[in-house]
Amino acid sequence: MKQRLLTPGPTPVPEETLLEMARPVFFHRSPEFREMLAEVLADLQYLFCTKNAVVPLTSSGTGAMEAAVANALPAGSKAICVSAGRFGERWRNLCKAFDIETVNVTAPYGQPVPPEQLARALADHPDARAVCTTLSETSTGVAHDVAGFGKLVAASSALLLVDAISALGAMECRVDGWHIDMCVTGSQKALMLPPGLAFLSVSDKAWTAIDANSKPRAFYFDLKKAREKLKTSDTPYTPAHTLIRALRVSLKKIRAEGIENLWARQARIARAARAGFQALGLELFAARPADGLTTVKMPASIDSTTLLGKLEKQYGLKLANGQDNLKGKIIRLAHMGYIDQFDVLAGIAGVELVLKEMGHPVEPGKGVAAAQRALAESVKQG
Amino acid sequence: MKQRLLTPGPTPVPEETLLEMARPVFFHRSPEFREMLAEVLADLQYLFCTKNAVVPLTSSGTGAMEAAVANALPAGSKAICVSAGRFGERWRNLCKAFDIETVNVTAPYGQPVPPEQLARALADHPDARAVCTTLSETSTGVAHDVAGFGKLVAASSALLLVDAISALGAMECRVDGWHIDMCVTGSQKALMLPPGLAFLSVSDKAWTAIDANSKPRAFYFDLKKAREKLKTSDTPYTPAHTLIRALRVSLKKIRAEGIENLWARQARIARAARAGFQALGLELFAARPADGLTTVKMPASIDSTTLLGKLEKQYGLKLANGQDNLKGKIIRLAHMGYIDQFDVLAGIAGVELVLKEMGHPVEPGKGVAAAQRALAESVKQG
Repeated sequence: MKQRLLTPGPTPVPEETLLEMARPVFFHRSPEFREMLAEVLADLQYLFCTKNAVVPLTSSGTGAMEAAVANALPAGSKAICVSAGRFGERWRNLCKAFDIETVNVTAPYGQPVPPEQLARALADHPDARAVCTTLSETSTGVAHDVAGFGKLVAASSALLLVDAISALGAMECRVDGWHIDMCVTGSQKALMLPPGLAFLSVSDKAWTAIDANSKPRAFYFDLKKAREKLKTSDTPYTPAHTLIRALRVSLKKIRAEGIENLWARQARIARAARAGFQALGLELFAARPADGLTTVKMPASIDSTTLLGKLEKQYGLKLANGQDNLKGKIIRLAHMGYIDQFDVLAGIAGVELVLKEMGHPVEPGKGVAAAQRALAESVKQG
Repeated sequence: MKQRLLTPGPTPVPEETLLEMARPVFFHRSPEFREMLAEVLADLQYLFCTKNAVVPLTSSGTGAMEAAVANALPAGSKAICVSAGRFGERWRNLCKAFDIETVNVTAPYGQPVPPEQLARALADHPDARAVCTTLSETSTGVAHDVAGFGKLVAASSALLLVDAISALGAMECRVDGWHIDMCVTGSQKALMLPPGLAFLSVSDKAWTAIDANSKPRAFYFDLKKAREKLKTSDTPYTPAHTLIRALRVSLKKIRAEGIENLWARQARIARAARAGFQALGLELFAARPADGLTTVKMPASIDSTTLLGKLEKQYGLKLANGQDNLKGKIIRLAHMGYIDQFDVLAGIAGVELVLKEMGHPVEPGKGVAAAQRALAESVKQG
């Protein structure tokens, strides 16, 4: 049976990148590797829409989040954590682990935190050193108005730290344009790679904070050391260099398409996914949905764990469940990276078939037709 | 031209493991992945010769060293750093970064620190919480007598932290038998994988120290969180799971050969490498050589950078230079993982040819013949 990986990370890796991963291993302290890394770093700047350095780290995205907190925020400082899901909460837990006082600005799961709520927190806490948030909250499928947050934070002395792990390359994200000081992503989402690499952009404002921090709590994630090494396109410790070679393939694809074209294509696929599920009478879970995944509430009679099990076993479709309290209640369909519009049609088709099998009243074809109509709306005629 | 990667990390990856890396990506929060991880963790215990848990981390080996220090040693505590090279110094720098007072027990580059020197330091510093050292010092090719260190440290209240990054699977290393409390390795040496994964064994004595440490300085590298997740063969953050799948291939090879047979084979290859270089009139740099690499001093008239450049350009042989002050003065030939005895012959043959070309008096054939005789000595007749 043909398998389709439609989870919001890891995502499928293009066949040519897989073949890149099968190429012989090479020595990394060489002019050839430095040349390749320099090229990849320039392409990462393009992806991030930033003129600033993007630091590659060999870790999961959480490692890059730790790098941001541990380098830029001294113990005893204060951070505003804007959180509406499990990954937003990760910033909070990270800050706690590093003795940073957190001001929690939250919204219920499925809702975004509106910028006005952050504005009040910034007014109440002018001593906050950072605002930590999530662009695409992978646990709920909600997108935050990070452009709105950025305007507020730029007017303060705080840094804006953004987890864009399931967002970068899957939806609009303008690091410089939105005043994001430290933006994090990982290799296993829209970058079409296996997990193992994380990336962190650092603005001038963030470097100033890092340089002023006399007691960074970082060694492996020491950004000053990374900055020094990046001057010669090198890394402080042995990087996952075969992944960096594979990353080059993904970044070339993104450059060839053009980042704004990519965002538009992603937005179109996301609209189709939402239209498809809604046409089945299902409710979207995210009030302000991200473009890289669609989260859908299950009807009261349907346990999502059962539905997802059937999708996988009977149709080779691997979608994700809700996490923690949302387990059994929602499903999460990814559409980023190497998952395209027709994979989304397959996902919706599978959900139609399994809902029907489970006795839920659906009219087969209604979901896929609605998704297809949404796709067709953006096709230029003539 | 055929390329041979003979550097002490990264090392070549077997073709079948490369193909494993090219297999489609899968979802990691699944029973299938947990089953695979459980199998890999059991095989890692076999490799480490330990009954204790081995924690997998997505990072370079330095990340696992940080995990050891940050979890087990509180700020303000004291550690004895037994160091005779660049990687031993990494422990010292790590301890400094984590506000741990270091007592430095050193030997000149090329020499090992004898156990007696550690015994004196332990007697002088009964309050030391840890002894940090390196089994195979990759920068000099020296092996420490970690079995000897272990006997001393086991009789104290200190923990024994060992960097075995270029040693584990390349030479004898008995974690439990030698009383090593925290032993670190990485994927890109004798484990025949690309870089990206690190592993850390943790003894009961180490867990007691970790549990007693009320202020661990770790989040991404939090070992208590890892221990909790490992109970269900899971990881706290997204692991480099395709590398874990590939690791299974390497570990099966090691189990099939048998760890003691592997050590014996490695020792034999190392003896052959040493005999070959010595027969060329070259001097070994390491007074107590490790079995995973051979370091050789260049004659005064030969710059190793030039020699290595010619080896690579003319013969496709990639050996490593000395680092820092040793650059230009030594060469480092690896023989671990997927580098076998005949690859070593190729390395020696290349050095013979280039030395001759550079005007150094060598008798071509003398090195490879001596290496071959050393190999033959351990062939059972009959």
